[in-house]
This record gives sequence, structure tokens and C-alpha cells, in this order.
Amino acid sequence: MKQLYDIAALRAEIGPVKWEDNPILVRQKSRDFYWYSPVLKRELEAVTADVVVTPSSEEEVRTVLKAAYKLGIPVTPRGAGTGNYGQAMPLMGGVLLNLAEMNKIRSIELGRVVCEPGALLINIDKAAEASGQELRMFPSTRGTASIGGFVAGGSGGVGSITWGGLRDFGNVLRLNVMTLEAEPRTLELKGADLHKAVHAYGTNGIIVEVEAPLTAHYDWVDLIVGFDKFDAATAYALALGEQDGILKKLITVVEGPAPHDYFLRHRALIPEGASVVILMIAPHALDAFEAFTRAYKEARILLDSSKASPETLAGLPPNYELTWNHTTLRGLRVDPSVTYLQVRYPNDGGLEAVKRIHERYGPEVLGHLEVIRFNGRIAFAGLPLVKFTTEARLQEIIAGHESEGAMIFNPHRYSLEEGGMKQTDAIQLAFKRETDPKGLLNPGKMIAWENPDFDYSAGRNFLFPGLEARARAAQG
Amino acid sequence: MKQLYDIAALRAEIGPVKWEDNPILVRQKSRDFYWYSPVLKRELEAVTADVVVTPSSEEEVRTVLKAAYKLGIPVTPRGAGTGNYGQAMPLMGGVLLNLAEMNKIRSIELGRVVCEPGALLINIDKAAEASGQELRMFPSTRGTASIGGFVAGGSGGVGSITWGGLRDFGNVLRLNVMTLEAEPRTLELKGADLHKAVHAYGTNGIIVEVEAPLTAHYDWVDLIVGFDKFDAATAYALALGEQDGILKKLITVVEGPAPHDYFLRHRALIPEGASVVILMIAPHALDAFEAFTRAYKEARILLDSSKASPETLAGLPPNYELTWNHTTLRGLRVDPSVTYLQVRYPNDGGLEAVKRIHERYGPEVLGHLEVIRFNGRIAFAGLPLVKFTTEARLQEIIAGHESEGAMIFNPHRYSLEEGGMKQTDAIQLAFKRETDPKGLLNPGKMIAWENPDFDYSAGRNFLFPGLEARARAAQG
Repeated sequence: MKQLYDIAALRAEIGPVKWEDNPILVRQKSRDFYWYSPVLKRELEAVTADVVVTPSSEEEVRTVLKAAYKLGIPVTPRGAGTGNYGQAMPLMGGVLLNLAEMNKIRSIELGRVVCEPGALLINIDKAAEASGQELRMFPSTRGTASIGGFVAGGSGGVGSITWGGLRDFGNVLRLNVMTLEAEPRTLELKGADLHKAVHAYGTNGIIVEVEAPLTAHYDWVDLIVGFDKFDAATAYALALGEQDGILKKLITVVEGPAPHDYFLRHRALIPEGASVVILMIAPHALDAFEAFTRAYKEARILLDSSKASPETLAGLPPNYELTWNHTTLRGLRVDPSVTYLQVRYPNDGGLEAVKRIHERYGPEVLGHLEVIRFNGRIAFAGLPLVKFTTEARLQEIIAGHESEGAMIFNPHRYSLEEGGMKQTDAIQLAFKRETDPKGLLNPGKMIAWENPDFDYSAGRNFLFPGLEARARAAQG
Repeated sequence: MKQLYDIAALRAEIGPVKWEDNPILVRQKSRDFYWYSPVLKRELEAVTADVVVTPSSEEEVRTVLKAAYKLGIPVTPRGAGTGNYGQAMPLMGGVLLNLAEMNKIRSIELGRVVCEPGALLINIDKAAEASGQELRMFPSTRGTASIGGFVAGGSGGVGSITWGGLRDFGNVLRLNVMTLEAEPRTLELKGADLHKAVHAYGTNGIIVEVEAPLTAHYDWVDLIVGFDKFDAATAYALALGEQDGILKKLITVVEGPAPHDYFLRHRALIPEGASVVILMIAPHALDAFEAFTRAYKEARILLDSSKASPETLAGLPPNYELTWNHTTLRGLRVDPSVTYLQVRYPNDGGLEAVKRIHERYGPEVLGHLEVIRFNGRIAFAGLPLVKFTTEARLQEIIAGHESEGAMIFNPHRYSLEEGGMKQTDAIQLAFKRETDPKGLLNPGKMIAWENPDFDYSAGRNFLFPGLEARARAAQG
């Protein structure tokens, strides 16, 4: 395999920084959960870096970025590789900058934690617990995901029912971001400036420090409420979301028969065909929760971790590992043809839109809703489970959702724009001009940089030319 | 003055329970802030109990209630007397049951406080602070109000922007309520049963213990943001309310010229004529708050307690004492013709309703909005400052609000129903049948008990016959 870059020179430049160029290990670290998408699986299968570099300090990051700039070698940052859209996959090869060992938790104060980007979310929560605190939100991959990866590649998750999304003001307090220049600088981003780097996939700077808000820690109670009908489950979930006094961290709806069929370790608890609402409720809100739930005659409490026997609980993963992207994962494990979408149902009439869409597709698209706060409202996001047949059919289903007033954040695309708002993010683009003049950071992910004239309305995917060039070079 | 009741026999029955029958002191304790309303001032001026009884334990409460039942003497409970609608005023005289000395804080755990009804809100917060906690919500009278009075006579307040109202599931965890029967019983109310006694003015039981939820304590920063125009202030306040990631405890809007004219100790900070948004923001949300606010070109930060000099702060009351019913109080102190309404603007189009109503009335009705969470939505409640002329004109203004789709919770009425939903609360009525068979608890406040056939649609006030009978008897 021909190398596009002078990797040997890089090694000489960066000296003692930890280095791994065994192709099997490099390939392993060059992947995330992109294979949830059959489209990305096809497109990104061959992607691999030339080398994995693992700095253990900000100074080592600086050394690597300085050398990469000098030698013109791409750098793609990676947290724990738990993304689903190839966020951390190095489309042009080069350096995979593995930040997993920059995992120090520097300080915990009232309302705040300061840490390095590779700190795992679960470890931050463990450390914060001593002060009675925890992170506001985490993805279902909490156990393995890093905070830097979450901020750079995620959008929200467990906790968004209370706090909204990562990009909302206040949900990240500060990022220190290093530029890829002749003399890399560390820029401190706060307030409105955070938008420059939150959910930018590391295309415009390497996050070297994160300050995140903390909230009160509770021993959240896992509950699963079963319903015969998906509609009844969605109505209940929305109404519970709108209960301002019932403190909760998670409200997820999964349509039957997925829960019984896919949640294998919960199978004995969930009747065949049942739709479920998966919850995390604060212990002191349980009485109120039960009183609220009692008014729903169809609701049956299938699991209550505050009352279940240790034997029952011993075999079960935490509730949040049934939700968000873990729902898809559990589906995929049972039925490899399962894939998914990411949907924002309309704010007004969300219940009806959900109903119409799921009546339209039946078992081809099983409902999976996440109840979140969005601009002050309780709203439905969704990661429906799609029975994949062809890419053309997937496109039809996406168009069908859009025709019902839903927005699709397409998880079958690796670019920021196609997975997002399908338009240039002028702030992130301007920041990239400032931080990455040579365009070496995570190349191919920001369409606005690669192809400013890309026409989103033409209905064609963005194909990063570098990806093909790289593939050809690798073969040549 | 002729006595309707055998007060001497009562004294003999209750033995050592603290007793006060000096008419001047009894009259003092028989009042609340009913005089905010010129209507209530006229109607309730003569109201006084026969005796103030001050139990110091649940056992002493039991002794009093047992004796009152035996002798047929009315009992009206009082917390700290900070209500505004005569909630704690003994329309039929009899016993004023002063619960101020039942003020023990029994336990504080994660998420919960258990205390006696007379515990002051500020003392609960002080005690909870050691565990890093505080109450979810309090009225602007936090410094003097008791928790029992708040639960029995209030509806929400500072904190409702996050948690909704007192009657929402989860905002009170448990009430122990004593009945007025031959053998008084203590009933434990939880979950849906709490509705029986929350905001029932003590008409159907004496609250002898309260369990309330706690949340994380922060050293809230007081901010005042000024605007030339009320409309700009309301739009900003609503948008800030909808920022899910910016942690806040209070968002209040007061229309100019009230802030400069009525907030005397803040006068130097507030330009003449300015409308203001009064805020309590968590310290770790300040950067996000400032970034959000910077986008509003008309917004000027007039006070930021995290940056103000000690000299500036020394003279100022806390922000919450400019809000909720304290806004009215500050108006009244400057202009005795000021009174108020209590309004819920429509959920959809609240901004426009506020605009239309205030354009319609101009300076006769100055806007005072409280941004709250209501059924999961950010919404406007209001306590507009009304320049009082006649009761007929006040009625016209109320009708005008209603014609714009706003709901009025009439603070110029002493009955539960007229100040509330203008309909029988079947649950509270049924509970009164169970707890107070002789109808001796806070008589005259529950229309459904006194006059089940009362016609709310006829547009006439409820006049409690007992009030007049009592007045006549007192004179006879």
C-alpha cells in the first residue's frame, strides 16, 4: 500500500508521542459504529488511517499538530469511537489522533467539571458523585464514550428531557481548542463561541479541555411501562414529559414488537408485541410518578428497579442501554437488516405526525421516540427502526417523513451538513478558516469547506472526492 | 361584643395550650395582606377571631380540634399570614389556630425535607443548604412565610419557571392532615391524594406535617435587564425562559414606568420609564446568559449581583422581593391606588395577548409577567398593576382580559372557587365531608360547601352569609 504522506518524517518530528502503525490495530481504531448504516458501511468500509498517535498531554497534541501542519498530513481526532456516522473516521487517512489517554478530570466544583477530552462520561459521573453531582446528559454509550467525543460528535441524549441538547446555551461551559497551524494555538471558547466547535466533528480544532455543567445526582430508578398500543404509549410519554414537577432523566418509547423481540435480557418482563415506555425517574418523584401513571388504565409497570428483586436486576443492563442509539444496536443484533433514521417530529401536532407516519409504514418502520426538551417545549425526537431493503427505499422513507412535516437528520451520511441542517454553518466554516488553514482536520466532513457550491436541494449525496482518491492511492 | 361561641369552655378544654384573647392582638393575627385588594379591604375589614390559640405540637393541635368539635367553634389555621386573599382570615370568628410555633424541621435527606407546617421557608432553605439543597419554589414572602401556609394558600412562585406549580405532581411529596372530628385523625396524603389539601386554605384539614422536594442549591445571581419597550422585554423574557440549558429560578417582567417609580431602592439603577426583566440565574449559567442576552441589542444589564460592588448591593433587597406579590406591594407603597389581578395568558400566542391587553389599557394596567412552566410549556402568568378607580371598572378590566383569551384568578375574592377555576372542586369538597363534618374549618371559603347551588356564570360575587351574621352578632 502506497503512502500519500511522509509518515516516517512525522514519526521523527513527534519523537516520544505514543505511536501505533500496525495496520490491523490502526484499522480497528479508524472505525466507529458507522456500520449501523448499510450506506455508510458500504461507503466507509475501506477507510483507515496511516498511524494512530496517542498523546498524553496538551503539549504532545501541540507537537503532533505542528508536525502535521509542516508535513501536510491530515489529522482526525477520536474520543472513544462510539459515534455512528463515521465522525471519527479518517477519510483521507493520515493521523488518527487518539485522545483516549488524555482523560484527566482536573476539577469538580459546584455546577462544573473541568476535564481532558478523553475522560469517559461514566468516570466523570463517578468522580462527580462524591460532591452529589452528575453530568446533565450522556449518550446511551455512557459506559465507553468520552466527553470530548460526545461534545464534538453528539447532540444530546439521556438528560435531554430536562436540559435540551448539547448545542443549547449552557450545556457546555467552555472548550479549549487547539488549531492546526505552524504554531498551534489553544483558543478558549465560551458562550456563543462554543457553537464554533460543538458538534463540528473536530473539523476546526482539537478539543484539549472541556468544562461542562453538573447537576444534582440522584440514584435514578429504572422503570418500564408497557402498553398494548404504540399510540397509547406515545400519548402517555408526552404527558409524562409535560409533568414539570416529576423529575426525570429519560423518557423513551419503543414500539412493539421490538421490545420483546430485541431487548433479550428483558424478554421475560415484556409481553410479546407490547410497546414500552422506558424511564429514569428520581427516587423522590416515585409517588408522583405512580399517581400520574395510575390514571392511564392501559399502563402496566413491567419493571421498577426500586422494587425488583436483586435476582431480576442482576441480569439487566441499565435502562439507558435500551435507548437512543442502543435501541438500534439491540435491533441489529437480532435482525441484521435493521437500520434507523433520526427524526424531529413537528413541535405542534407531534403526536399526530408520529401516528400518521407509523400507520403509513407499519412494521417496516417501528417507532422509537425520545422525549426531549426543545426550545422550551416537550417534543419528540425519534430513531425509528427501519427494516432495510434498498438505499432507494430508504430514501423514499426519508422523503415520506419529510412530507409529514418531520425533519430528518440523516444518519446515513458522513458529512456534518447532511446529517444536520443541510446548509452551510457559516460560523463553523469561518472558524475552520481560522484554525485549519490547510484543511487537514478531519477532511471530507464539512461540505462547506470541501465544496462550497454543493447543492443540497438536488437530492444527491455528497461524495467526498478525497475518499475515492485515497482508496485509489491505497490500491495503487 | 357578644360572643357566638363558648370560648370560656374552650379554654377549659384545651388547658395549657398557649392562649391569647387580647382583642388588639387577636385582630392583628386575624389578618393577612387582604388589603392589597380594595374589594377585600372593604369586605373583610371587620373580621377577627375570638381567640388565638398557638399549639406547639401535633398533640396540642389534636386537643384544640377535639374541643372545637365538641363545642361547635370554627377553627381557621394560619401560617405566617402572608396570604393576599384572606385565606387565613376567620370569617366566622372562633379560633385562629396559629401554627407559627410548630416550626420544627424534622429531617433533610437527598431530595426531601420533612417539617412542621410553621417552619419558615427561609429557615428550611438555610437548613437544607448544609446538604447543598434548597426548596424548589417559594413565594416572594420567603423571608416570613411558612411552608404550611404556602402549601395551603399559595400556588407557585420563584422556581415555577423550572418546576411548575405547587399543585403539579411531585412539588409536594406528603402532607399529614388532621381532621376536625370527635376524635381527630391524622391522615397521610401522597400522590394524587395531595390534591385534596393543597391550596384548600385549610378548609378540609389542618396540615401538621409537610414533606417537600428539595433540589440543588446554588448561589443564584440577581440580574436586572432593562428595555425601552415592554414588548421587547416580554419577547426576551419568553425566549430566555425557553432556553433549556440556562438554569434559572426567576424570570419576571415589569412594565415601565413601574420599576423606576416603585422599586425605590433600585431607583438609581433603573432609568425612568424603563421596563425590566428581573432574573435569578445559576452562577455556572452566567456565560451562557450573557451570550444569549448579547443577541438582544435593546437589552441593557442594569444589575448583575456577581459583579456589583458591595456598596451597591448593600442597599438592595434580593431580586425576588421585586417580583410576584411583592411587585404589587412596592406599587402600593408609592401609590395607594395600585391594586392587581392574577392572569394566565393563553399558552399559544401569549406574547400577542399580552401586547393587545396592555395596548388596550395603557398606564391604567401596567404589565407584570411571571414566566413559568405550565404543563411542560413556558408560559406567562401575570400580576398586572391596576390603577384602581371603582369596583365596576375593575370588573370591566377583568372581563376585558377574559375576552382576550386570558384567565383571571381573581385576587379580589376570598373564596377558593372565585380565586380559582370558578367551579366546584369535587375532590376537595368530598374530602371536607370526610374531615370536617360540622363545617367548622375555615368557614366561608369553600362555596361548594356553603352554597352548592351557587351560579358562577351569573357574574355575582359569593357573599358568605356567615360573614354578615357574624358582623351583626359582633355589633349586637
